[in-house]
This record gives sequence, C-alpha cells and structure tokens, in this order.
Amino acid sequence: MEKLFVIKIGGNVLDNPAALSSFLNDFASIRERKILIHGGGKIASRLGDQLGIESKYINGRRITDAATLDLVTMVYGGLVNKQIVATLQNMNCNALGVTGADGNLIKASKRPVKDIDYGFAGDINPQGVNRELLSSMLNLGVVPVFAPLTHADGKMLNTNADTIASVLSIGLSRHFDVRLIFCFEKKGVLKDINDPGSVIHHLTKKAYQDLSANHALADGILPKLENAFAAIDAGVKEVLIGEARDLLKNTGLNTQGTLITE
Amino acid sequence: MEKLFVIKIGGNVLDNPAALSSFLNDFASIRERKILIHGGGKIASRLGDQLGIESKYINGRRITDAATLDLVTMVYGGLVNKQIVATLQNMNCNALGVTGADGNLIKASKRPVKDIDYGFAGDINPQGVNRELLSSMLNLGVVPVFAPLTHADGKMLNTNADTIASVLSIGLSRHFDVRLIFCFEKKGVLKDINDPGSVIHHLTKKAYQDLSANHALADGILPKLENAFAAIDAGVKEVLIGEARDLLKNTGLNTQGTLITE
Repeated sequence: MEKLFVIKIGGNVLDNPAALSSFLNDFASIRERKILIHGGGKIASRLGDQLGIESKYINGRRITDAATLDLVTMVYGGLVNKQIVATLQNMNCNALGVTGADGNLIKASKRPVKDIDYGFAGDINPQGVNRELLSSMLNLGVVPVFAPLTHADGKMLNTNADTIASVLSIGLSRHFDVRLIFCFEKKGVLKDINDPGSVIHHLTKKAYQDLSANHALADGILPKLENAFAAIDAGVKEVLIGEARDLLKNTGLNTQGTLITE
Repeated sequence: MEKLFVIKIGGNVLDNPAALSSFLNDFASIRERKILIHGGGKIASRLGDQLGIESKYINGRRITDAATLDLVTMVYGGLVNKQIVATLQNMNCNALGVTGADGNLIKASKRPVKDIDYGFAGDINPQGVNRELLSSMLNLGVVPVFAPLTHADGKMLNTNADTIASVLSIGLSRHFDVRLIFCFEKKGVLKDINDPGSVIHHLTKKAYQDLSANHALADGILPKLENAFAAIDAGVKEVLIGEARDLLKNTGLNTQGTLITE
C-alpha cells in the first residue's frame, strides 16, 4: 500500500507566523501522500471578542451556539484555511482546503444533548469518511487541508481537530499505509515530565499497559495516548506524537518523537 | 462534448434566505455537470461595519487593504461558501467549496498599481485556470462552488465573481460544451427598460452590433453584454442572462432569459 501521512498541527504553531511558515515549508517538502488538519481556536476567540461573541467552554470543549458557529465557519473554514492553502501553493504544494461538508468528505451527526448542550458540535466516526473521494483526490496529487468543521442535515458543525485526524486516519487505513502525526508542544511522550530529554521513542500497546499500570505517565498525555491506541486498534499502522519543528524527522525512519505501534 | 453549466448567483439572492434556498434547490436538481460561483459583498460589508473595517469602492470595485482581505477571505471563503455547500449537500448535491487558491484552480496576478491602488485584488485570465484538475473533479461527480477569491505569490486575492465565471467558462470550453448563466435581478436583457416583458430571447453578435449602433440598449446592461460576447469569442458556446428564479428553465431548451450565441 502507498504511504500516507495524516498530520495535525495545533494552535501554538498557527499563532506564531515564523513557526507556521517553517512548519508549512517542511510539510510542503514531504514527498509522500499527505493530509493536513489544523485548528484555529485562539484566532476565533480573538475575533469573537471583537464581535462580542463570548467563548464558552465546558470540559475543554467549546459550546457552539449559532453566532459561534458562524464565527468558527469564517475563521477555520475561511481565514485560517485559505491562508495555509495560499502559503502552501506558493511552496509548490497543491493544497486544497476543505471542511467535512465539502465533497461530503466527513459526514457527522449533531452531538445529542444529554447533561450539556454543546450546540452545533459534530460527532464523527470512520464510517462517515468519504474514502473514495479522498483517495481519488490524493491520487490526483491534491493535498487536502482540513479545517475542523463537518456537517449534518444542511448545517456546518464544529468538530475537534484531533478527532478529525484520527477518524480520517482510520477511514483511510484500508487504502493506505497511514502514519498519523500529532504535532504538539513537546518532543514526544516523556518518561519524566520534568526531563525534556526523556522521550519514549517507541511505545507498543504492551509497554503502554505496563507504564499505565505503574502510573508512570503524566495525566495530561493519557487522553492523547488513548486516542492513539484507539487508532492503532482500528487499523492505523503508526501514530507519532512529536514537536512541529521535528516534522521532517518524524516522517522519516529516524523519528524524534514517540512512535506508537501495535 | 459533455454539457457544463457555469452559473453565477448575485448578492440579491444571497441576501434573501427563501430565494437562496429555492435557487439552491433548483441548482441541486440540474442533472448535467455544473459549477456555481457566488458573491457575498453585502454580507462582508455588514461584518466589516461591526469590525470597524470601512468598505471603500472606486468605479464599483472594492479597495482591498489587508484588513479587508482578511474580511472577504472569512466571509466569501468561509461563511457564505460553507453555508451554500452544507445546504447543497443536504439536497444530495455533492458540492465542494473552493477558491482559486485551492488546488491552484485559478492562478491570478495582483492588480498592478496605476492611478488607483486596488490593494489585494486579483486579475485573472483563462490561461490561469487549472482545466485538468477541474475536469477531473467534475468527472468524479463533484460540484465545485467558487468563492470570489484567487491567489498569487502566497496571498489570497479578492476577485470579481462575474470575471471568475467568465474565465472558468472560457478555460473549460475546450473540454466541455459550456453554457455560462448570469443570474441577475431582471428576466433578461430588455428591449425597453421600462417594459419587463420586452425580453430579447436570443441575441447574436450581429443583432447586438445593430442594437448598439442604434443605441437601443440601456447603458447598465452593456458591460454584461461585452463580457458575454468576449466569452463567446473565446470559445464559450452559449451565455444566458436571466433571473435566478428561472434557473431550471434557463438550463433547458425553453429558456426565459436572453440566450447569447455567436
């Protein structure tokens, strides 16, 4: 199978023009098939402040009322997405910016209201991925750049970017040999949270279970790792958690971050 | 050659939710290959007012400074485009929203500064159209929905929607049998501007030259007709000028608007 990199960049890179430009330059130079997923929450919150739209969060997730939906549709789908696309085009990377609504690439369902009404928030699963169209686009040499938005029933829906990256990776794992890369602010998963040099370079499910049983990992990294192993269990070949500036090393054999495999 | 409809909708329809929904429903039901191009100037101006970004025009064209570029990128490329795409998806039309930057579909050049500095405005021509990728997308059953934005040198550029419609039609006329449809607020080109029933149903170049020589046409329609005949001269088979609500008739044989041919 052809290799495919599914790469998520976080807000800290988007918010730093020099870091973003350097990251996109590295991304553009990857020769294999690739997909980029970006966030944009801080930029949306700043514009929301100007427009008098309050940013509300519960359990770290944004509450998306109608005004907030318009805000994130503009900022994620318009401003951030198109600036990334124009920059990549200038680097000879044939980026094409999309949301899950475009080409019905990711069909979602509006999150049901239980204790909390998250508003226009989209829940997604790998069955909602339009694998045929995405594969065709990748085979045409197009590089999809996803804004964290999906759709259902004629409405856009705000959707977590990490989840989009996972779901795309799982959905495409039958067609491609996928490495899912989460770029975050550390070099990788650390054995000792106070020692940036203590990166765990390779983590299997067995090793992870042993570390978990011994409570040897920092709480903050656990949701990321659960997410990563859920992807592995669902057919994704490799997940890598690392720093944005290490992208090119982390797409090669000599990875610097934490490589997660079965 | 396969038939292709390239359809431009104007601001008066975008600004009226009932008219827009009805128009999109008609658009979704067209069975042939199709492309939609939309504007969004009034919505951008309203959001600009909220953000303290003044809308400036010279000769009917917006001056696009850096703040205005961000504004139109958000509104055209994000808000308006994605709302149309989500609505069309709900009508079983596989819409995929794009700007000229996406997939390098329309490469532009920044308008040179002569007497007037239009700022981040894009000039385009049919050579800048990525015919191969657009044809591939159409052949995959995808329906491109264009926001009026293009790109050059890593920057988004604000671009007239009528011009995008013309340039796409010309660029694709070697691959498809194109009917370019401009939806505007009247039934068609009128013989007598005071009589809405006086639609000229068919206009050839010869007839147009005769009418022009006799000063028999209203000044307002002349730029549209020049644009239309420029498209015809460059290989577009048919141009139709008509009302949005007549879309389905105007894509058929029994056209209600003004059909322009060689």
